[in-house]
Amino acid sequence: MLKKSLLSTLTCSTVLLCAAQNKTAENLVQYVKPIIGTQRMGHTYPGATVPFGMVQLSPDTDTIPYEMNGKYNPDVYKYCAGYQYDDSTIVGFSHTHFSGTGHSDLGDFLIMPTVGALKLNPGTEADPASGYRSLFSHANEVAAADYYKVKLDSYNILAELTATTRVGFHQYTFPKSDSAHIILDLMHGIYNYDEKNVWTYLRVENDTLITGYRVTSGWARTRTVYFAMTFSKPFYQYDNTNYSKKTVYRGFWGKWDQSYNFPEIAGRQIRAYFDFKTEEGEKIKIKFALSPVSTTNALANLRTETPTWDFDAVKRQGQAMWQNELSKIIITTNSSAEKQNFYTAMYHAFISPTIYMDNDSTYKGLDQNIHTAKGFTNYTTFSLWDTYRALHPLFNIIQPKRNADMVQSMLAHYNQSAEHMLPVWSNSANENWCMTGYHAVSVVCDAIVKGNAPFDENKALDACIATSNHRSYEGIGYYIDNGYVPEDKSGSSVSKTLEYAYDDWCIAQAAKKLGRNDVYEAYLKRSENYKNVWDASIGFMRPKMSDRQFRKEFDPMRTIDEGFIEGNAWNYSLYVPQAPDTLIAMMGGKKKFTAHLDSLFTMELPDKYFAETEDITRDGIIGNYVHGNEPSHHIVYLYNFTDEPWKAQARVRQILPMQYKNTPDGLGGNDDAGQMSAWYIFSTLGFYPIAPASDQYWLGSPAIDAATLTLENGNIFTIKALNQNDRNVYVQKVLLNGKPLNRRYITHNEIMNGGELTFYMSSKHGK
Amino acid sequence: MLKKSLLSTLTCSTVLLCAAQNKTAENLVQYVKPIIGTQRMGHTYPGATVPFGMVQLSPDTDTIPYEMNGKYNPDVYKYCAGYQYDDSTIVGFSHTHFSGTGHSDLGDFLIMPTVGALKLNPGTEADPASGYRSLFSHANEVAAADYYKVKLDSYNILAELTATTRVGFHQYTFPKSDSAHIILDLMHGIYNYDEKNVWTYLRVENDTLITGYRVTSGWARTRTVYFAMTFSKPFYQYDNTNYSKKTVYRGFWGKWDQSYNFPEIAGRQIRAYFDFKTEEGEKIKIKFALSPVSTTNALANLRTETPTWDFDAVKRQGQAMWQNELSKIIITTNSSAEKQNFYTAMYHAFISPTIYMDNDSTYKGLDQNIHTAKGFTNYTTFSLWDTYRALHPLFNIIQPKRNADMVQSMLAHYNQSAEHMLPVWSNSANENWCMTGYHAVSVVCDAIVKGNAPFDENKALDACIATSNHRSYEGIGYYIDNGYVPEDKSGSSVSKTLEYAYDDWCIAQAAKKLGRNDVYEAYLKRSENYKNVWDASIGFMRPKMSDRQFRKEFDPMRTIDEGFIEGNAWNYSLYVPQAPDTLIAMMGGKKKFTAHLDSLFTMELPDKYFAETEDITRDGIIGNYVHGNEPSHHIVYLYNFTDEPWKAQARVRQILPMQYKNTPDGLGGNDDAGQMSAWYIFSTLGFYPIAPASDQYWLGSPAIDAATLTLENGNIFTIKALNQNDRNVYVQKVLLNGKPLNRRYITHNEIMNGGELTFYMSSKHGK
Repeated sequence: MLKKSLLSTLTCSTVLLCAAQNKTAENLVQYVKPIIGTQRMGHTYPGATVPFGMVQLSPDTDTIPYEMNGKYNPDVYKYCAGYQYDDSTIVGFSHTHFSGTGHSDLGDFLIMPTVGALKLNPGTEADPASGYRSLFSHANEVAAADYYKVKLDSYNILAELTATTRVGFHQYTFPKSDSAHIILDLMHGIYNYDEKNVWTYLRVENDTLITGYRVTSGWARTRTVYFAMTFSKPFYQYDNTNYSKKTVYRGFWGKWDQSYNFPEIAGRQIRAYFDFKTEEGEKIKIKFALSPVSTTNALANLRTETPTWDFDAVKRQGQAMWQNELSKIIITTNSSAEKQNFYTAMYHAFISPTIYMDNDSTYKGLDQNIHTAKGFTNYTTFSLWDTYRALHPLFNIIQPKRNADMVQSMLAHYNQSAEHMLPVWSNSANENWCMTGYHAVSVVCDAIVKGNAPFDENKALDACIATSNHRSYEGIGYYIDNGYVPEDKSGSSVSKTLEYAYDDWCIAQAAKKLGRNDVYEAYLKRSENYKNVWDASIGFMRPKMSDRQFRKEFDPMRTIDEGFIEGNAWNYSLYVPQAPDTLIAMMGGKKKFTAHLDSLFTMELPDKYFAETEDITRDGIIGNYVHGNEPSHHIVYLYNFTDEPWKAQARVRQILPMQYKNTPDGLGGNDDAGQMSAWYIFSTLGFYPIAPASDQYWLGSPAIDAATLTLENGNIFTIKALNQNDRNVYVQKVLLNGKPLNRRYITHNEIMNGGELTFYMSSKHGK
Repeated sequence: MLKKSLLSTLTCSTVLLCAAQNKTAENLVQYVKPIIGTQRMGHTYPGATVPFGMVQLSPDTDTIPYEMNGKYNPDVYKYCAGYQYDDSTIVGFSHTHFSGTGHSDLGDFLIMPTVGALKLNPGTEADPASGYRSLFSHANEVAAADYYKVKLDSYNILAELTATTRVGFHQYTFPKSDSAHIILDLMHGIYNYDEKNVWTYLRVENDTLITGYRVTSGWARTRTVYFAMTFSKPFYQYDNTNYSKKTVYRGFWGKWDQSYNFPEIAGRQIRAYFDFKTEEGEKIKIKFALSPVSTTNALANLRTETPTWDFDAVKRQGQAMWQNELSKIIITTNSSAEKQNFYTAMYHAFISPTIYMDNDSTYKGLDQNIHTAKGFTNYTTFSLWDTYRALHPLFNIIQPKRNADMVQSMLAHYNQSAEHMLPVWSNSANENWCMTGYHAVSVVCDAIVKGNAPFDENKALDACIATSNHRSYEGIGYYIDNGYVPEDKSGSSVSKTLEYAYDDWCIAQAAKKLGRNDVYEAYLKRSENYKNVWDASIGFMRPKMSDRQFRKEFDPMRTIDEGFIEGNAWNYSLYVPQAPDTLIAMMGGKKKFTAHLDSLFTMELPDKYFAETEDITRDGIIGNYVHGNEPSHHIVYLYNFTDEPWKAQARVRQILPMQYKNTPDGLGGNDDAGQMSAWYIFSTLGFYPIAPASDQYWLGSPAIDAATLTLENGNIFTIKALNQNDRNVYVQKVLLNGKPLNRRYITHNEIMNGGELTFYMSSKHGK
């Protein structure tokens, strides 16, 4: 058990000191390749952000409307993160982006520098010169942690971006021009549609400072984001155009001409511009701060976080923050591709949830009121159906302070909720109810079970219980009354039943820890509800109707309309993470179960079924195993409950290089707000949390030679994989702190206490 | 000089004590007839409000859209205050109303109780049963200070309203019904049009509490008002309908059915309802609080101001507040009509500006940020082109604390203004730039000159100077450069030139008082700019062009397109309140001037010209003298500068009963946020401030036998009009504190020091 000296911990209490301390350590930031996942389905973005930053300043390569002719426009999907690697133009740089999500929003406050004739529309990729967008090429593009650079070929402008937590910092190097423009497009957005912009407001405070806000009704139904924007050089004129229908009161009564250099405008569809005269090579810099609370707070954030105009210093500071986060796990491998994959996965895992409060700890709550986060940092962007599985468990190890803050953010959400529920998929003071389950429960209970709960644990458990008993929500009433969700009452009923049962088990585990035996008993019983959708006659989970009969029509290969969501019966039937042994017994015992798993990975999925799987490329599938969607993430580790655990090891080593590559198209599916990356990190380290809210991490096959986890409690946990390489993927034996580990999992405390886990690897599987 | 005892002042420091103290005094509230002015052009409303209250809870009798087929709908004009006496139906009761304005907005949060089949549209007056509106008759209607009662004939529901400063209190007495509804219409508004509702949000916190907000873009461009609403009895179900185009993200992904009893909704066009079962005679009460800041604050306002469900107690408290305000001037007259007119004028004068901050002193500022009013109460609803003339001077006498707070509110506005200007016509954290001039300057400087300036006077003067030098505003640049506003550059140029010149004189007076001689000199010079639009050849002020030539076409009888606004050259040419003597000299001396004034009152205005006068009925005009609009308000007192001052006396006594009657149609024009009423109060007392920012009040003819002004400084100023009656309108002599007053004005200090002003009245004019 190794313990870092207290002094060392303390001296690392600030980013700059850490950066200094890490000077002699390896630069890990160099391995971060934000471009990974920007092609095809990864839905990542290449722009600048600090860890968990409120600002994600990134290029948007097109502006696809969410609707075309009143109908959903499927092309919008690939622009979830605003950027598609294959595009040839950049529309501009906006300040908010989701990372890896399968639905979207945001894209606030697009900035675009241009020279020449003013164009206030974005134009089209087919005819870039018709608008303000610019051609670019990847040859002139650099995407790094908290730094993005690109040449805007249409204007001969070099664009550079960096960010602090709440401020996007732009640096544009202009050619000589008498007509240089900075466009601020308040209409732009991701998943935009005509009605999305509820209101925008812009205020020219003086010739270098602009403030304002944008209210949108998108995936977040009622979202306001405030900003303050400063220029390094005064503009000499400015104006805006309101593209929405004229509002009637404006020109009334021959009042003051408000069309030119008028310092405030409000409306639905506004684009503004600010004009400069530039010398060759002149840099115009912009600091653009956000706030969920007010323009006053945005300006305070700006002044607090970026007191100077030193772009390079801000970039250095941001990269030092990344170095600090990345160095929490130092891996040893002779593969630089592996390092790129690993640290990019760390990077993607540490982007969201995002900080959602100002420097004065105020934020907008779900009740649309301003709250102060007392004793915690408030976060948003909770893609919980994805992230409860591995991302939050990863945080409980390597980011326990942040994870506890995230739980407290969820409890604040609960307190502010009109439905009196924990979040499902929450973003920017809004709930979009996306996906199934009430998995905040898993995150809260995992934190309680693992002792990372610096809050009122009983109140937190009460919030879980209340959420799980909200009868009108997604079939919960039927679930409580019948023991399953009837498919004719609430769609995706099998997914719901299985996930509710797992979440209920989490409640039972937390209740047990808190000594609330009645809750434990009741929820342990509820956690067995998975049995009610098991059709033993066919060996699959299957949708059941209100009359307690299984639905007649059923195709276990189909993903859609069969009672599941983002998974078919082959995958989803295995979703009993809380009771693999029982599942295996139900499925006919270990041998049969092993064969079933084998088939899953080796069968051929006919093309007609692939077309139904969501969010993933063909590469995201191995046989009928769909790694690109989350319900399967624990499956490979279920081999641990059979007599052939080595199959888990082999499959993990098959999945890792297939699904995670260090290329723009390197992600087989959406990164899903870090869940895919968290799976990668766990699996690369050699273990995985099959069932969060248990303290067990089940062993796989470490894909690096060693890893050192520097924990917040000062302990160090080291993983060694002796003789590991691409062929030596099998674990012969495992020592924990030098003693044989006679089980197939390690516990949370074993990690958090520090120590050494040693895998002896071989090309042949052991027992 | 009489001084109230300190004890008496102190014991009157709370409303309730005052009410107690006044128990033995006459009930003045009985004379308040809010129905006065609700017919035709008065634009007053009959509903419930406390003095300067943030809530004005009043019935709206129709919902006329601001636009029809994309064009201004002139019928909207008569609904400026929501209520027209001649209407036969009531649509419902909304919480915000302007009093007496000539343009409008507001009408927020309409509540309507109904029984029977649910109707969610308002219906039409022609077919009331087609919607939720109800028939009513004036026979079943009571409108009093802070109390309104009406029988809703269509539903047999008795509606009663009262209010505190920030809370509207409804009491509905229902018949027995299994389907009683309370409708909350978030679409309703005054001067409504399709785009006005920017966004509304509604949240059912529990079965008696609703919160939410409404964002509008109307006369106030970007206005948000928050609410909290409680029912005295739980509703058993609720729902809402969103009448705007469907927003695309809602039904997505088969998510939770949000259509029935779903506790939150946001959208552009929402009507909600809450259902009850009622017994015969059962009362359902509603407390509805507003806030400019948040729903949290609205709820805090609700709990602070209306802690119980005692409707009668709230009404008593509100009427005690009115008694307290009204008793600041106790008049003696044997005419109960006179008392009704006088105390209704006091009532209308004490409605606006309105308090615009929460109980915790926070409010939304012009910069759309939340501010805290430190050391003052923040007000809004500044109709300054109207109210600088007599309302604010009246406040400097009888409401000095409030007037100083209003000035501080204007200075806060200045500090928050993107244009760095004092308010022109400001409302709810917005500026609508309505009407000419920069008359906040007059109000600020009047307060400084009169020593009612508990703020940084030099900063206040700087704000006046900055405002007066805003070159791009309404021709000010031309005015500064040329000494007048050229008509070809900025319309209503003569009105602007005259009003700027007067305002500049105000700056000079304040500068003189503050010892800033350079400012004094410069602005005294600017104040003479009225001379630059004087056409001696025709004896009228006349629009001048950029080439310094008078415009050729000119008709001094026309109100429109002749360089004036709300007045013709006959009236407006007399607008040199700062220098009547010079004006008289310019016009050929006292004799000629007197004849000119005589003609003004006696000439016949051909009908074709009347059609152009705005805001007034034919009764609002005497000859060519237009009392219903403000530019003439000082004119009658100009006789004091001639050798025939008694003509002022006679004309005042002619105007008073003609223009102010104790009937629904009793006001000859819009009450204009209290300015018309303030003229009435001053003139009835016997003096008038021709030029605010001077300390002089010029004498007229008191129309009551006596009046006692109880001043905030503890002094008492008494006016006696001996032998006064409808024939004895002429002043024979005047004593101030027993000594002959050998001038035609009294000064501010003479009033504020307390004392007695005695008029000796006669049927024959004196000297």
